[in-house]
Parts: sequence; C-alpha cells; structure tokens
Amino acid sequence: MAQKPSIPKGTRDFGPAEMAGRNYIFDTVKTVFRKYGYAPIETPSMENLSTLLGKYGDEGDKLLFKILNSGDAFGGIAPGELANSPSLSLKVCEKGLRYDLTVPFARFVVQHQNELAFPFKRYQIQPVWRADRPQKGRYREFYQCDVDVIGSTSMLNELELVQIVDEVFGKFGINVCLKINNRKILAGLAEAVGHSDKLVDITVAIDKIDKIGIEAVKEELSSKGIDKDAIDRIEPVLAMKGSDAEKLALMRSILAESEIGLKGIDELSELFEMISAAGVSCGVEIDLSLARGLNYYTGAIFEVKALDFEIGSICGGGRYDDLTGIFGLAGMSGVGISFGADRIYDVLKGLGKFPDEAVSGTEVLFANMGRKESVYLIPAAAALRKCGMNVEIYPEKTKLKKQFDYADRKSVKYLVIAGEDEMNSGTLNIKELSSGEQSVVKINDIVSFFSKKN
Amino acid sequence: MAQKPSIPKGTRDFGPAEMAGRNYIFDTVKTVFRKYGYAPIETPSMENLSTLLGKYGDEGDKLLFKILNSGDAFGGIAPGELANSPSLSLKVCEKGLRYDLTVPFARFVVQHQNELAFPFKRYQIQPVWRADRPQKGRYREFYQCDVDVIGSTSMLNELELVQIVDEVFGKFGINVCLKINNRKILAGLAEAVGHSDKLVDITVAIDKIDKIGIEAVKEELSSKGIDKDAIDRIEPVLAMKGSDAEKLALMRSILAESEIGLKGIDELSELFEMISAAGVSCGVEIDLSLARGLNYYTGAIFEVKALDFEIGSICGGGRYDDLTGIFGLAGMSGVGISFGADRIYDVLKGLGKFPDEAVSGTEVLFANMGRKESVYLIPAAAALRKCGMNVEIYPEKTKLKKQFDYADRKSVKYLVIAGEDEMNSGTLNIKELSSGEQSVVKINDIVSFFSKKN
Repeated sequence: MAQKPSIPKGTRDFGPAEMAGRNYIFDTVKTVFRKYGYAPIETPSMENLSTLLGKYGDEGDKLLFKILNSGDAFGGIAPGELANSPSLSLKVCEKGLRYDLTVPFARFVVQHQNELAFPFKRYQIQPVWRADRPQKGRYREFYQCDVDVIGSTSMLNELELVQIVDEVFGKFGINVCLKINNRKILAGLAEAVGHSDKLVDITVAIDKIDKIGIEAVKEELSSKGIDKDAIDRIEPVLAMKGSDAEKLALMRSILAESEIGLKGIDELSELFEMISAAGVSCGVEIDLSLARGLNYYTGAIFEVKALDFEIGSICGGGRYDDLTGIFGLAGMSGVGISFGADRIYDVLKGLGKFPDEAVSGTEVLFANMGRKESVYLIPAAAALRKCGMNVEIYPEKTKLKKQFDYADRKSVKYLVIAGEDEMNSGTLNIKELSSGEQSVVKINDIVSFFSKKN
Repeated sequence: MAQKPSIPKGTRDFGPAEMAGRNYIFDTVKTVFRKYGYAPIETPSMENLSTLLGKYGDEGDKLLFKILNSGDAFGGIAPGELANSPSLSLKVCEKGLRYDLTVPFARFVVQHQNELAFPFKRYQIQPVWRADRPQKGRYREFYQCDVDVIGSTSMLNELELVQIVDEVFGKFGINVCLKINNRKILAGLAEAVGHSDKLVDITVAIDKIDKIGIEAVKEELSSKGIDKDAIDRIEPVLAMKGSDAEKLALMRSILAESEIGLKGIDELSELFEMISAAGVSCGVEIDLSLARGLNYYTGAIFEVKALDFEIGSICGGGRYDDLTGIFGLAGMSGVGISFGADRIYDVLKGLGKFPDEAVSGTEVLFANMGRKESVYLIPAAAALRKCGMNVEIYPEKTKLKKQFDYADRKSVKYLVIAGEDEMNSGTLNIKELSSGEQSVVKINDIVSFFSKKN
C-alpha cells in the first residue's frame, strides 16, 4: 500500500533552488578560506559516545542522537534481557551523531597530530544533529561551517579571521559590523570587582544583554551572589561609548591592577593595530559587553551582525587555549569562527542579494519536435557543452507550451527550435527568452553565435 | 582523564590531502552534471523508518542504522517498561540513517511533486550508512554520487547519461569501457527459453558472471530449476562476440517471438544510433551478459570499467519504470547512474592522474621574522589575496627551517622573506621553492611580479 511520504520533524529537504543558494554560500566561503591557507577536512557523522558525552554539559548530553549498534532493534539483545541487566544498555548504543564540529575537530587533531603540519588551519562544512525541540529557525539537522587554526598563539591568526569575515561578507554584499572583545578583559573585570570566582556567571549573564537588556542582566548578576557595589562597577563598562582607542584607555585604567585584564587589553590593541595595517572594509569595533556563551574561550571573541536585516548574529567565534586537552594533548592554543549558513541564507534572500548565477542552471534548452529532429540537434548540443555551456535537449516530444513552461521554471535563457524547415536549411531558430528576440543561425555556427553573446 | 581518541569502525576521517582529491572528483562530476541540466538536491540524513523499511530486502533492513528517538538511552522509557510491553519498542526508534540515495530520491519526488518541473533532473552527492561488517574497501559511512532523470521515457535521457560518463572520465583522464544492456532483452531471453517466471533468478545468476565465471552461473541457474535445454540456449548469448550490430542482429533472431525482447533490442538500437550522432570518445559496447543486481531496473542498464586499473565497476545504473509507486505515484519512468567516488579515487591515485591543482593549496607563504616584520607584510599579503591568490603569513616567529618545513608540507610554491634589510629598502625576497630561484622585488611591485609568473 502506498505510504504518504514525509520526513522526520526538524529535518529538511533542499530542492534545486535552495541548493543553488546554499552552494553559493558554501562556495564563496570556501574560496575565501582557501585564500588564507585553510584546507578542508571531514570527520565521520557518527562519533563514539565516549568522544561526545560530557563535552556539551548535561543539557547537551540529552540532545545527542544515539545510534543503535546493529540492525536489530536492540542490537540483537532481547528487551527482556535488557531489563534484567541494565549494564547491557551500554552495549546497545556506542555511537552518536556529531553535535557540533568543534569536538570532532579536537578529536581529529589529537588523533592525527603526527600527520599534520602545525599551525594546522582547517575548515569544515558538515551537518550536525541535535535532538532539540524543533521550532522556527531551529532544526534537528543543520550545517555548520567552521574555520579554525590550532597550534599558534599569534595575533596574526585573529587578524586573518577578521580579514576572512570582511572578505566573505564583502563578496555577499551584506553590510556587517564585526564586534570584538577579549575574554581576558572580562576576567580582569571580574577580578577588579572582587569576583574572580564568578567569571562564568558574569560571562553567561553579560552574554544575554542583547536579548534581555541591562536591567535583567543586573538582576541575574545579583541572583548569582554578586554584590551591588560590584554590579555598579560592571554596568558602566557594558554601556561604554566612544572610539576604540578611548574604550581601551578607559579599560586600562579600570583594570590597572589586573594582570590578566591588562593582557587582554594588550591583545586587543595589537589586533586593532594589525587590522588598521591590513585595511578592512566592514565596520570593526570593540564591544565590551560582548561575552559569548561558550566556556572554552580564553582570548579574543568575535560576533558579526548584519546591519540592514533584523536577525541574530550571523557569524561568531573566539580563541580557546585548551580544546584538545580533554583528548590528551595540552597546550594547543587555537582560534576559530563559525558562519551561520541558515541565517546568511535568510539575509541574502531577504535583501535580494543572491546573484543570478546562483539561481539559473541551464542556459540553453533545445526544444523537442520529434525523434528525427532531436538527432539533428544532438551534435549542436554536444558542441555547446564542449565550450562549457549548460545545455539540455527536452527529452519528450510534447506541446511547445509545456516545453516553454519547463524552460521558464528552470530559468533557461535561450530556447532553440528546429523543425522540418530548419532541418532542410541546416539552421536553428534561437529565441532569447527574456527579450523574445529571435535569430536564425546555421547549425554549424551555433558555437560562434553564443560565444559572441557571452 | 584524557581519552585515547578514535572513531567508530568502518568510518573515516578525511584530512586535507584526501579532501583535495575527493573535492576534485565531486567538483568535476558536478560541473559535468550541470552541463546537462541536472540540478542538486539534498535530503535529510535521517528518514522515517517507515520510508526505509522493506525497500532493501530483509538483508537491507538489518543493515539500517536506527536512531533512538530522544537523548535518553531508551527514548525516556525505562528498560523494564520495554520488557513488559514489546510494542513500546516501536516508540524507541522511528528514524534510521539513509541507506542509499535512491529511496530518499523517490520519496522526495513524490512528496514535492507539485513543486518540481518534470522531467525532473537531479544529482545528489551525500553520505549513506550501512551497518555492514567493515572490511577493506567497505565502509559503514560512504558517499554516493547519483544522477537521475525522472518523468520521461525518451531514450535521449540514456544518451545524456552516456555522454556524461564519457565526459566525466575524459576529464579524469581514465580510459574506460561503458557496457550497455537492456533488461527487456534479458526478459525476452527468459521468455524465449520458457522461463519468464524465473527472470529474477536468471538476472541474479548472470550478474555474477564476472566474479564466478560461466560454469558457476550455469550451476546456479540449474539449482534454481532452469532446465539444461534452457541453459544451453542462454549460454551462447552470454558469450556472444562480434560488433554491436552483429550482436543486435543475432539477438533479434533469437528473440523473434518475444515482444518484450524485441522492444529491448529496438531501445538499444535507438540508443546506439543516438550515441553515434553525438560522438563519444570512450569505448561503448553492448554486453549481453551485463545484468546488474538491482530488481527495479526495467530497461537500459549500464556499467563502467576502468581499462588500465584492476578494480570492480566504477559507475553503473539503469532505467526503472516504477521507483515512486511504493510512495503512491505510479507511472514515473526514470533512468540514472551512480558514480563510485571511493573507487574513482583509488583509480586516480593508482594511475597518478590527480592534477597538481588538486594537491596544492597555498601558493605563497610569507615567512615570519618577528612582529614588526609581519605588520610590514600584511598589506602585501592582502594585495595578493585581492588578486585571488592563496596566501599565508606564517603566524609564529620561529626558526626559518621550521617555516620551510611547513611550506614543504603544504606544497607552497613561493616563500617570501622580509627582515630588517628588506624593510629598510622597501623590498621583499621571493624564493621559488621548486627551482630555488630568488628575486628581490619592491614591496609595491609584488602584484605585478606574480601576475607575470601566472
């Protein structure tokens, strides 16, 4: 019996139109990544659960999709047996689907450390899976697009990521502002207000400022046991206005007693000096209220906002000093950013910034007037393809109306028609669909006809 | 405690070198697919089990990787409960990982039939998963690379696939032979020898001829209840020599009484007429012993062999008349082929056919002589990238030896060095690493230096 087909909640099919847009995004970022010496890697969709568990907090552990060991529903173990021996359950699931690209990257670097050239610069564009409750804009399967360098503490790496952001969004034609902060400044601030032990709480609270506002952040800080005096000293920092140089100068005085705070300011100053040597086009500014949620960041942190479209951050990242320690390789500092492909897609679509090439596929469609006529057209189609053109012969002899519709749906540029008359005179009738302009061309001249057009 | 990192059996990490080769393969086939009007789609990694089960036979069902519904080990159901109510087990697993791209494609076409332009031409390059016993060359996660057109019975579609095969392997520089047969001829043969009911048995047996030889095929046919007389009439067909025209003529006489057999011969004749109009470079021949295992084929069948490298078939496919019927859409004929990316990789590597571009990434490495020197280099690196070159500044100030090693491991072409002297004179020292040739160039002339080189 026929089933009504559907796909699991929170997953998506991508048809040709969406794929064209998505490929445009991925191809663009890949081209830029390669210009800065980043090379692609791919890791398996499934990792051992021992690799994944405990890396994303309790909440994350619950969101891992787990895979049964074998084809049998319970790995060949009868449910009855399972009940009698709960320890057997470990044998049922040993693998889970990748939750992000960061932990697999750390695992990859440690596992292959002897084969890699360090500093190791990689990009990785693959889907990840989360057993989250699906809702608008939140999927159970989605692509991440990460670029990281590991094994170098130099601020030149941060500069490169800034240049990559600038170049990527420049190519997209999206106006953005890149906000930068440094976790060491936040650590210095916690120290300066007498709450070094509460750095995570402070970071988590500040991270919400865009969503919940300053008053709610203050309440959260207070609920975490941070006294009013400390909060009063944190607040003006978060609201600090002025040029980057002014902000740095003011912070330098506030953090004068904090070694780590001053280190953060030095790092930020060095980065901005390099940015000005490189010359970037997008807006870049220090945002001392930028915190980013993830706990493993220890230095520079980044976030990119689109200026002309209302949406959350479309790119973000930062420096981490010990991502690989958990897999037994200590002292590898790295820095990376992640591009939000789904949001960038929405921005490009919302602003109408997808280029035509990302939309159309087939350039020339040869209409089908019958079998004899098709055979007449085959060499002409082959000749155009040899020049790199995207060409189709409509496979069925049907009404021309239907063939025109097909051309229209595939955004074809030229329709070529050859019936009895054209065959007898060795010609083709070429119609440019946008203008309606028609040309009659010798079949042997078709390549030169189109090479003049392009 | 540090874990020794590893990945699940039968899965693979792909580092930069393998990725470069794999991307070369995928980019090449995609470019060719697009030239024939095929557009990409992607489907979710997980499908509902109801979509997958029963589509691959009992053996296939066992090889499906099943996914637990939620983050809890048993979908929030205690193992004890499971034992008491086996029907609950259905609630534990509702999803499985994609086993191939064909069933998801059929599901996609039926689900989106109102949005698609028919004939619908799609390619799809995504991983699939099988809980098979891992062994050399057999993985639990591997990419398939399928190209299909659905909604047209025209032989022009078969021609296109032949042209695609020819063009793809031409671009790869792999000499191949494309073998073609037609399932209707096999059906006619079964009819002609009085065993129409045994078509599947005959097909499955013949499909093994390359692996087990003609005598073993005859034994298998006999064991399936096909009488000696019938086998004696099948054998010469499988061993038939001569030109394609001679084979067709001989088959036409053997199948003179079989309507379906003659239809198969007509289809094959029409296809070869078109192939000769199109002009292809690779070897194309009729192979009446070609059967292909899959049961859903009903017309033309294809298989591609590399001529200069010992390996199984590297590409194959055929026409099917009712792929979507199981999802409620009858009468959609289609034809498609699948490229074996892993085997093509082995052939390209074995024959040394990967082009240089598929190997090298970074063209120019700027050595790092210190912070001041790096800042001096930043605008030069940015200028080269603006021209589309792939450029790195080595991020750390270390021994030059180490930086040369890094350049070597990344197959860098030029190393650029600037120390105190170069900074004072506004120059750069450029070393071509393959020849050792050195040039001193004004820093402002670096773009024109490299544009003359390329």
